Amino acid sequence: MRLLLTGGSGFIGRAALRQAVERGWEVVVAGRSRPDVAGEFDFVQTDLLRGGAGTALIDSVRPTHLLHLAWNATPGVYWTTLENLDWVASTLQLYRAFLEAEGRRAVFAGSCAEYDWSGPLLDEAATSLTPSTLYGRSKDGLRRVLQAAAEQAGGSWAWGRIFFVYGPGEQRRRLVSDVTVDLLEGRPAETSHGRQQRDFMHVDDVAGAFLAAVESDWSGAFNIATGRCVPVAEVVTEIAKQTGHPELLKLGARAAPANDPPRLEASTDRLKIDLAYTPRFTLESGLKDTVDWWRSELAGTI
Amino acid sequence: MRLLLTGGSGFIGRAALRQAVERGWEVVVAGRSRPDVAGEFDFVQTDLLRGGAGTALIDSVRPTHLLHLAWNATPGVYWTTLENLDWVASTLQLYRAFLEAEGRRAVFAGSCAEYDWSGPLLDEAATSLTPSTLYGRSKDGLRRVLQAAAEQAGGSWAWGRIFFVYGPGEQRRRLVSDVTVDLLEGRPAETSHGRQQRDFMHVDDVAGAFLAAVESDWSGAFNIATGRCVPVAEVVTEIAKQTGHPELLKLGARAAPANDPPRLEASTDRLKIDLAYTPRFTLESGLKDTVDWWRSELAGTI
Repeated sequence: MRLLLTGGSGFIGRAALRQAVERGWEVVVAGRSRPDVAGEFDFVQTDLLRGGAGTALIDSVRPTHLLHLAWNATPGVYWTTLENLDWVASTLQLYRAFLEAEGRRAVFAGSCAEYDWSGPLLDEAATSLTPSTLYGRSKDGLRRVLQAAAEQAGGSWAWGRIFFVYGPGEQRRRLVSDVTVDLLEGRPAETSHGRQQRDFMHVDDVAGAFLAAVESDWSGAFNIATGRCVPVAEVVTEIAKQTGHPELLKLGARAAPANDPPRLEASTDRLKIDLAYTPRFTLESGLKDTVDWWRSELAGTI
Repeated sequence: MRLLLTGGSGFIGRAALRQAVERGWEVVVAGRSRPDVAGEFDFVQTDLLRGGAGTALIDSVRPTHLLHLAWNATPGVYWTTLENLDWVASTLQLYRAFLEAEGRRAVFAGSCAEYDWSGPLLDEAATSLTPSTLYGRSKDGLRRVLQAAAEQAGGSWAWGRIFFVYGPGEQRRRLVSDVTVDLLEGRPAETSHGRQQRDFMHVDDVAGAFLAAVESDWSGAFNIATGRCVPVAEVVTEIAKQTGHPELLKLGARAAPANDPPRLEASTDRLKIDLAYTPRFTLESGLKDTVDWWRSELAGTI
């Protein structure tokens, strides 16, 4: 039982790597650089966007399981970059090689951006898949072809649609990381009105959901979310409380993005029933974990 | 104005190549071998499924226009082969390179297999895109991503959904070619009941529709069909008449394929109005052209 993990240096990937090693998987991480994560795992240096890289990788690693998280996730870039096409292409080539090498089970990262966002509930079986961004449309098109290939070849597969993730190690230019750092450093944190409702999940729970999918034999697409959809104001107010600087939170100081959907609630029956996964963190305990991590991270600089 | 044509050695590709040259295009054909077609055109030897081939091709040819017909079309194979994933991947890489080289207009080959076949009318704007085969699902997933990329980058594009094609030069193991050759060679031609209704288009008209799309600036998906949907029995009876061997046609001697849809009619307003294209052949004149070609082709052997 050998798990090939891509995207292992990313935010979710590092958490997935730690958990896979803890759970006793023989893990091989493939990517541009070795993740800075403790524990025993192998590393193969490769650029998945280079032609033929996926096939060579499968031939050398011969994984029984695949967890493919690699993608362009650069804030402000990934929604619109034409690199999305390259990730679709390289994922298809990787999966074809995996199927032909008789890999047993493959799990891929999808996105809530695949759904029609007119909401309010984003349900795997009922909500229209009419994404509006190049990123969402690329993930959606990819999933359609992957599912067809899996069904044709009799492959076991799952597609986890990520909603809103936060936690220790998140990059800057994200809501939770930026608000937390601003407040811990004593600067005002300016946000929009905060009435938008979203489902925020701690990165360790997102990674746990992916591992649950790797270890299951249920095939299909599933939402990765807690099932609790809250106003953004509640999230940032909790951060402000935990940092000890509620007076620096400036709700409503920024305009909300155009077309910001009022509510993106996730159905979570597939995650909780079909994959039998239960998140470990509440929003409060997850934000405490995050603020504590940033406080420690910034300790030398504040 | 330089047209890059892929799949130029294929059934439709050879016809498209002839017409593009006749219409004064500077044509560069890319593929594994130079098409056996008269007329002035350049040829670049390449294997599009090799990693990086599409990017290198665009960099060397610098086309203003792209007509991408290459795909696996081997009868009995193309519906289910995992090579469909490679064609999706290589098409995305080719198109990304084309967009980044500021190519003006790209036209791709889709298929009626992208539609829900419960019919009876397959309409670009109204029919559900819920294909049932790996081939159809690959084309559908690809079109979704290509369209998203075109809209993101402001590219001009079209996607022509091919229905049922026949004509001179068609490979064997196809209905029209096999029935024609059997009858011309004096063997019984066994077919199913022939009550299925299909829209058959002469290959020169299919190629003409693609050329019309290349020369248009209308963006979208469109059906490539005549608008006349006839029982298969009418097609093979006409062939039998033209070969002079009506007594050798054995309608009903073979079982029809399981789940054979009774009627696949194509809406053709987009082709005829938006792209202003009118087919040149009737079913009768097109079959006459085909039977005459086979008769000449087989002249030394009969």
